[in-house]
Amino acid sequence: MAMPPSTSIYSSRQKGLIQALEHTGLSALVLNPGPSLTYLTGLHFHLMERPVVALFTPSTPVTLVLPELELGKTNNLPYPVQCFSYQDNPATWKDAFSKAAQAVKITGQQVGVEPNRLRVLELRFLEEAAPSSQFLSAEEVIASLRLQKDADEILSIRNAVRIAQEALQATLPIIKIGMSERELAAELTLQLLRSGSDPGLSFSPIVASGPNSANPHAVPSNRQFAYGDLLVLDWGACYQGYISDLTRTFAVGSIDPEMANIYRVVFEANLAGRSAASPKIPAGEVDLAARSVIDKAGYGKYFTHRTGHGIGMEGHEEPYIYAENSLQLAQGMVFTVEPGIYLPGRGGVRIEDNVVITSGGAESLSDFSRELITITE
Amino acid sequence: MAMPPSTSIYSSRQKGLIQALEHTGLSALVLNPGPSLTYLTGLHFHLMERPVVALFTPSTPVTLVLPELELGKTNNLPYPVQCFSYQDNPATWKDAFSKAAQAVKITGQQVGVEPNRLRVLELRFLEEAAPSSQFLSAEEVIASLRLQKDADEILSIRNAVRIAQEALQATLPIIKIGMSERELAAELTLQLLRSGSDPGLSFSPIVASGPNSANPHAVPSNRQFAYGDLLVLDWGACYQGYISDLTRTFAVGSIDPEMANIYRVVFEANLAGRSAASPKIPAGEVDLAARSVIDKAGYGKYFTHRTGHGIGMEGHEEPYIYAENSLQLAQGMVFTVEPGIYLPGRGGVRIEDNVVITSGGAESLSDFSRELITITE
Repeated sequence: MAMPPSTSIYSSRQKGLIQALEHTGLSALVLNPGPSLTYLTGLHFHLMERPVVALFTPSTPVTLVLPELELGKTNNLPYPVQCFSYQDNPATWKDAFSKAAQAVKITGQQVGVEPNRLRVLELRFLEEAAPSSQFLSAEEVIASLRLQKDADEILSIRNAVRIAQEALQATLPIIKIGMSERELAAELTLQLLRSGSDPGLSFSPIVASGPNSANPHAVPSNRQFAYGDLLVLDWGACYQGYISDLTRTFAVGSIDPEMANIYRVVFEANLAGRSAASPKIPAGEVDLAARSVIDKAGYGKYFTHRTGHGIGMEGHEEPYIYAENSLQLAQGMVFTVEPGIYLPGRGGVRIEDNVVITSGGAESLSDFSRELITITE
Repeated sequence: MAMPPSTSIYSSRQKGLIQALEHTGLSALVLNPGPSLTYLTGLHFHLMERPVVALFTPSTPVTLVLPELELGKTNNLPYPVQCFSYQDNPATWKDAFSKAAQAVKITGQQVGVEPNRLRVLELRFLEEAAPSSQFLSAEEVIASLRLQKDADEILSIRNAVRIAQEALQATLPIIKIGMSERELAAELTLQLLRSGSDPGLSFSPIVASGPNSANPHAVPSNRQFAYGDLLVLDWGACYQGYISDLTRTFAVGSIDPEMANIYRVVFEANLAGRSAASPKIPAGEVDLAARSVIDKAGYGKYFTHRTGHGIGMEGHEEPYIYAENSLQLAQGMVFTVEPGIYLPGRGGVRIEDNVVITSGGAESLSDFSRELITITE
């Protein structure tokens, strides 16, 4: 490696982690495959039936437990590692965990874990390898590292937004009345890849029409969209491991006046949320700004989710934009503003943008038209 | 619903689960989003920061803990459910888990979990809701339900194989020397969707060239493939929730004679593995049949992984094809046969087919040419 270990981005992130751990009672952090592991090590592993973990402590190199066939990925890393590998026979896995736990001396310690990533699979191996240790949530430590994006990270998200917008622009002429949700989802996926998204999209597009659009997490179905439908597209791209997450809602032919009205309310709520975003205010204020527009219009009970969530290497991460969140927004935080109104059995509207907190306010990274576009043929 | 509850496929699978639980000490099963939950309920949830679990017991309806905004998915199910929903504020989640645990009376019981799916996130909520319960692996119970595929499931996998093969056929003319691994991965993804794969592929194609092909789990890079490379494509489609998983290895121009030799060895090992597959033999025999070909050729130490793994709703599931596995193969089991030889720093070969055990032997669902194809321009 031409680059000396001390200058790699991963070494400096690992140093940041160790410093952050010092302010907790945690003497180590254990991660399984996922964005946090990639953020700290640059390593990618599939999350599979074979457990992979990385252990970070102040006094040892990065310590990996992994299948022998993954060892090749650990060659020539710009920081020191020690590896404990195992064979395909699951009977051999326990031993690798046990040796790793001894090497990093976590027995009897408080060890941080990532609760929404680490599985019972890895936890049970760790508990067996270090029986008197406690495995506690390190969610806040991890979030604190990844919460404020640096300039390179923001550039990647900006590119992911650009790719997503180009993909929608290329898809619009293809949308025809009578097309199924699944067909449109496939077309949008094609265009995302053609526009330069990483091959593994962050998530498959949501295409939800008519009554299905009243379900915020609908899965594309064989339903063909028809005159009078609302049509929700929720899609995103991935660029160098960073994601975008956008939503636009369309009218299919002439829609019910109440549907046109909820569109206007959501449009205003989206604007209010984006306008409220700025440094040094609690995340909850962005939610309240968007929510109050919908409340005042009388649709509060039909806005059934929070106003947004952070994005970065993950589709959902800190900061979460819900009313009670007192987390103070700060420069470099990136999140969605996505108010919606969902009328059960009838249809829903959501308009979602991706916003970055700047020194004096916030910038919307997405600028695809938010006006109601009607599909007429 | 026109269909009475008792006749739905999900009701009968739930009945099968309850019967299977009777033979264990487990009084309940808890699942989070994933294929097993979908298999038993037909429900799809994203695996996110908000915990979702389904609890199954002999004496209660299917019991769901889920965010309020997901409640719409539980309308009109062809079996009884009870739901405990919560709001976006994480402070409200604990209460939903607590009420659900009380409703299904799991306190003090042995509760089955799926170790390679359930996360610490859900586990900690469950432990808090039912403090004296034990959460134990129900891996074998779940595998027993999903291990032997019925005719409809095999048809879906057959379609997923057909789609994958059509996609490779359509991609071959596009492959050019000098193309990058990532470009080829994107093209292959396009063709998978065009050929009819579900929008959410089971996995992003692996494209690994030259020295990268010596890494069985390589991630597509910007490396451009060049004369003399081996080029490994590992790809699959998804059809109605069931997946295929294939690998073919190509020569880019004229390759080193040793590389041509390892190709022939892997070809023979693949044939030996497929030929050995039949009902009533241990899964390990398929591994040994393939492995002995590679051992005899002197490359045993470079075949660094097991011969295969089951496929179905998951990319990796039972039966795992490793030497020590005494699990008896039976009609309807579907798995990969994918021997490989990986010479570090030089290159690797893998040939992967998908095989179903029949009444008297095994059928390869994949039949794309296994002869060495050379890319010449």
